[in-house]
Amino acid sequence: MGKELLISVIGGSECSDEEAQAAEEVGRELARRGAILICGGLEGVMEAACRGAASEGGTTIGILPGDSAKAANRYVKIPIITGMGYGRNAIVAKSGRAVIAVGGSYGTLSEIAYALQNGIPVIGLNTWSLSRAGVEDGSIIEAQSPAEAVEKALALAKA
Amino acid sequence: MGKELLISVIGGSECSDEEAQAAEEVGRELARRGAILICGGLEGVMEAACRGAASEGGTTIGILPGDSAKAANRYVKIPIITGMGYGRNAIVAKSGRAVIAVGGSYGTLSEIAYALQNGIPVIGLNTWSLSRAGVEDGSIIEAQSPAEAVEKALALAKA
Amino acid sequence: MGKELLISVIGGSECSDEEAQAAEEVGRELARRGAILICGGLEGVMEAACRGAASEGGTTIGILPGDSAKAANRYVKIPIITGMGYGRNAIVAKSGRAVIAVGGSYGTLSEIAYALQNGIPVIGLNTWSLSRAGVEDGSIIEAQSPAEAVEKALALAKA
Amino acid sequence: MGKELLISVIGGSECSDEEAQAAEEVGRELARRGAILICGGLEGVMEAACRGAASEGGTTIGILPGDSAKAANRYVKIPIITGMGYGRNAIVAKSGRAVIAVGGSYGTLSEIAYALQNGIPVIGLNTWSLSRAGVEDGSIIEAQSPAEAVEKALALAKA
Repeated sequence: MGKELLISVIGGSECSDEEAQAAEEVGRELARRGAILICGGLEGVMEAACRGAASEGGTTIGILPGDSAKAANRYVKIPIITGMGYGRNAIVAKSGRAVIAVGGSYGTLSEIAYALQNGIPVIGLNTWSLSRAGVEDGSIIEAQSPAEAVEKALALAKA
Repeated sequence: MGKELLISVIGGSECSDEEAQAAEEVGRELARRGAILICGGLEGVMEAACRGAASEGGTTIGILPGDSAKAANRYVKIPIITGMGYGRNAIVAKSGRAVIAVGGSYGTLSEIAYALQNGIPVIGLNTWSLSRAGVEDGSIIEAQSPAEAVEKALALAKA
Repeated sequence: MGKELLISVIGGSECSDEEAQAAEEVGRELARRGAILICGGLEGVMEAACRGAASEGGTTIGILPGDSAKAANRYVKIPIITGMGYGRNAIVAKSGRAVIAVGGSYGTLSEIAYALQNGIPVIGLNTWSLSRAGVEDGSIIEAQSPAEAVEKALALAKA
Repeated sequence: MGKELLISVIGGSECSDEEAQAAEEVGRELARRGAILICGGLEGVMEAACRGAASEGGTTIGILPGDSAKAANRYVKIPIITGMGYGRNAIVAKSGRAVIAVGGSYGTLSEIAYALQNGIPVIGLNTWSLSRAGVEDGSIIEAQSPAEAVEKALALAKA
């Protein structure tokens, strides 16, 4: 049977044009490589990534915070209704075998934290960087381009 | 684009042979009719339904309680990792446009309650029935066969 | 040190005068007996129970569905902010060492289901009754009065 | 009536002696100032903070990840049972009117993220610091001592 390969794409529901372009290219490349895109299902980086994946015929999953599929962006093919608000971020983070973060604010930071806690590789495109008690934490793997981010995500995907 | 049609199948992680047969036939019929099966991803009724759907080439989603895809039955193609225990029941219930209950215990009852609270039709095969303050509650729609359950689920699927 | 004794009171956010009176008396009696009242923190049965407990100087905890303490009724002394919508019902049910249900609709039913799944005694005042596959399920212990409900809840409280 | 003042203390379930001492002093000072301590209810920083609060007669709330109160440290007076694993971190973060972070790992980082997302002030004692896209994010307010951390938490507590 085999399970599908799910990769999470995370980032803000508001984003710059540059971030949207990067997210869209990440989505396209994931679909070309046969991965399923999972995200929070809303606007901004999420919508751009879904649009990219859909343009290449990829499957897109949106883990929605509210009680209705209506809030999903129109490129989400499989809406999952959690009704649990931003508590759903843990699910977005944990369900990917790797996570690609494009920019993002505090919601994205919570998803990065959950992924790292679960041993899931996080690839970053112009996103958060972390230090703890004054020492840099190198856990977020930086990529220089969408293609490199996808390459690294697939190479490092958790077993 | 269009969203996929998701139908939830719920029931016990332990079940009788008769319940497993009913669940498998529900899964097969959902796949034949082009619906995606969403369930709790574990054994018993969930596994039987996924096996049926998979045998007809259908897509199967498992909303898993734990922190790993390893607990998913082998017919789950898309494992969603919630890490939130049986709190995930709300997600299984809400993500279907209709819910089909096959037998089931208290976990199934919690899913029925969440579905009814959200205005999602619940079709029952030999499952719970409810009264409140001594008055029968007719919200669970009984079906006499797996085929009838799927027929009703598709006919009543929430917009 | 010792942990406090928490008892859950569940029921609708809309309720009849009779249900409100019963809930208020449950709250008063719990406080007189030294138990802490835990509930969903909103209106209806929850508010009436909190009002009763507060009138006897008892402690009241509200497990709130939203992202702010502002939705709590004014008798909640300890607001817990879940932001997870009605997914919070599982927490209300599980945190009591016994559950007292006063009337109630589908949300209450989900809480009853979670309590029974976790082996927590459920005492009912004019609430749901259950049958499964045509056989009555006697798990909900009926009480004839608020005082009897509290008596049974304290006697049966899970270790 | 008035609601109680809840302050969250977050940090690792494993911690250094120095962190435990800081957390204990934070707990003591919160209790002396009349605040209720809310935390994740387990060991390490959480236990030390609860021990401090309890030693001054303070109230301590533990938002537990599992399905039983047994995992709570012995200084937790009010155990809240979520059964939702580390998804409970969102509740710990949101329920405080301010958050004090002592050291901590990725779980603590998720709590910091949720607090900042909800506009709740975060005071840090030797904890994470954040940059985004190369620019330092000054949202975490650093304190030099437990007393200063409590002072700032009470001064900044969200309305």
